[in-house]
Amino acid sequence: MTIIALLSDFGTRDPYVGVMKGVIAGIAPEARVIDLTHELSPHQVSEGAYTLRASFRYFPKGTVFCAVVDPGVGGERLGIAARLRSSRYGPYQLVCPDNGLLTPLLSSLPAEAVAVLDNPRYHLPEVSVTFHGRDLFAPVAAHLANGAEVEALGSRRDPAQLRALDWPGPAQRGEIWLAHVLHIDRFGNLISDLPGDALEPPLSGWQVKLGERVSTPIRRTFADVALGEPVAYLGSSGLVELALREDSAARVWGVSVGDRLELIRRA
Amino acid sequence: MTIIALLSDFGTRDPYVGVMKGVIAGIAPEARVIDLTHELSPHQVSEGAYTLRASFRYFPKGTVFCAVVDPGVGGERLGIAARLRSSRYGPYQLVCPDNGLLTPLLSSLPAEAVAVLDNPRYHLPEVSVTFHGRDLFAPVAAHLANGAEVEALGSRRDPAQLRALDWPGPAQRGEIWLAHVLHIDRFGNLISDLPGDALEPPLSGWQVKLGERVSTPIRRTFADVALGEPVAYLGSSGLVELALREDSAARVWGVSVGDRLELIRRA
Amino acid sequence: MTIIALLSDFGTRDPYVGVMKGVIAGIAPEARVIDLTHELSPHQVSEGAYTLRASFRYFPKGTVFCAVVDPGVGGERLGIAARLRSSRYGPYQLVCPDNGLLTPLLSSLPAEAVAVLDNPRYHLPEVSVTFHGRDLFAPVAAHLANGAEVEALGSRRDPAQLRALDWPGPAQRGEIWLAHVLHIDRFGNLISDLPGDALEPPLSGWQVKLGERVSTPIRRTFADVALGEPVAYLGSSGLVELALREDSAARVWGVSVGDRLELIRRA
Repeated sequence: MTIIALLSDFGTRDPYVGVMKGVIAGIAPEARVIDLTHELSPHQVSEGAYTLRASFRYFPKGTVFCAVVDPGVGGERLGIAARLRSSRYGPYQLVCPDNGLLTPLLSSLPAEAVAVLDNPRYHLPEVSVTFHGRDLFAPVAAHLANGAEVEALGSRRDPAQLRALDWPGPAQRGEIWLAHVLHIDRFGNLISDLPGDALEPPLSGWQVKLGERVSTPIRRTFADVALGEPVAYLGSSGLVELALREDSAARVWGVSVGDRLELIRRA
Repeated sequence: MTIIALLSDFGTRDPYVGVMKGVIAGIAPEARVIDLTHELSPHQVSEGAYTLRASFRYFPKGTVFCAVVDPGVGGERLGIAARLRSSRYGPYQLVCPDNGLLTPLLSSLPAEAVAVLDNPRYHLPEVSVTFHGRDLFAPVAAHLANGAEVEALGSRRDPAQLRALDWPGPAQRGEIWLAHVLHIDRFGNLISDLPGDALEPPLSGWQVKLGERVSTPIRRTFADVALGEPVAYLGSSGLVELALREDSAARVWGVSVGDRLELIRRA
Repeated sequence: MTIIALLSDFGTRDPYVGVMKGVIAGIAPEARVIDLTHELSPHQVSEGAYTLRASFRYFPKGTVFCAVVDPGVGGERLGIAARLRSSRYGPYQLVCPDNGLLTPLLSSLPAEAVAVLDNPRYHLPEVSVTFHGRDLFAPVAAHLANGAEVEALGSRRDPAQLRALDWPGPAQRGEIWLAHVLHIDRFGNLISDLPGDALEPPLSGWQVKLGERVSTPIRRTFADVALGEPVAYLGSSGLVELALREDSAARVWGVSVGDRLELIRRA
């Protein structure tokens, strides 16, 4: 039994995701579908890309990821499938538009094979111009779960030629690290794009600064501060996060995805 | 293994849908449940009815649809089950309240048998007056997935006697088609009730007009216009849609479900 | 095949729940996961506790419930697992933080065995301080589904020593019952914490009063009043509820969780 993990910005108000699952069930009745999330911010490829990288290793070996954040649907962008190099984290396979969704993931786990999805045998008989999730990506993921090889799905592609993600990423400027708010979670916690292991240890020697609004040291966890107080910590994805204990940092401080954070050494 | 596809206006905040799945798992442990959507606008039978018609054909043959948008729960309305005429799309079966949910679907695929759900053997032992999804529709869907016949579920019903959906539908007035906003999707795109094949080809010869706010020709897809520009196109459900590329048409133009659209020939 | 029912305040915007399912699929590939809900109000343990009690009996015998509403994650609070006394409702098992989530449930179905989750053999190799749902509770639930015994998961705990839920509960004051709004559902209906069977019959002899805003008798169901009118009734969970027919009582009357209701005998 193979897992297909779905990730999209389709939301769950509309039947889009349900229909993709209907298509998968018709092609690969034995596969099991797990929703990673469908509530990525509409058209935010970077959010999808980092969610994929933070999550993939918790899935069983052999999982097929089907990621659809696709502002370019119906235009020139290609659909692709990739098989990642085997590792302690499995041979994983992925299906998605070629728009940078794989960039962060491939930087930690290189692709062994990439194909452009141009073999119509693995698509629905009629492919619409507006819903490739249903007509292209879901059927390809189902065929991969059934044992099809990435190489059979279409023309071979050099992984180095994939489109790179349009996101600045964290950067070091002398003694300071500049980072960005990558994602705001349901609790209003701010997840940055800075991995904790980029910082010279110990983590407690660093201060997280959000403009003039807050500056607070990295601690171990929420419980280390009082209710309503700011707290920075190494989040469960290995990224530095900034939050208010049991309150919404995003709302209280008026923060949006892309806003800048600074990490400075404590005096 | 049979698929049970669930469709409701219950949302996912409350445990209603989870409890229905618990009931199904107890009766039909081998059935697999797929959520079509649970975030239909509360009590909007028309939205559920058109979602069902747009989606059913992507599910494997034999799928049992369980649709619960039920403003009349506990009142006089009947519960029904239907088996649709076999076709390249199925034999499909459906369970729902008799309130018009099946009207659009039955106009494309007629019912072979309809029963009123009055045989208590297929319900939970205690049927509440407020939650027939759990006590009536979920158990009946599970029994259908186990192989029960529609005819066994209760009194036979003439399909012509089912309640019709209360929705005007599109209409032709001379050279103009009047249509309505049937559904607003997560992206703020406006899905109309007008099938593209009702229009005399080519589609590019028609203009979609939303009052005085916008008038734009039918194009192939989003990518045919610049970011933020209006675009009309044939959507993935076969219906004419109107959108703003990477923005919310519903919000920008202040549109609600039921608002009127006109389709006029281009000069 | 064992069911694992998940309940949390993680929402579905973030990949937290999807990742928990990935972990479960790796440990217990045969288990089937059902989402009870993930949209409990953030950090509201009482809402989770009452949802669990209202829902559990609709799940098949043997179901493992994994409930994570965990404002104290990373602090002193313990993780626990419990096996409930066998009954017509199953031998059920539960995994959750020790913060009162089980209080209402255990008052109707006592625990036969409780363990503190201190045996690391049943956790992920690395346990973060911020995401015990993934690193602790999901793997333990998966091992229970695989047949592990509660007793193997860690130190034995006396059920009487579990932390009690911090919620006042309904109370009788002479001829009046004081109750509270426990939960507001998607439709804006107000679910109280008062079980209908606490009231001396008949239910129609009682009036539900929300401050000065409304006072209305308990009826059978929505259909007993006109559209937009107030209606009190015995809800599908066995609790007294107050609603507006096809409108949102919470919005119209400005009600929040915890607000007080009074039940008085009709003159």
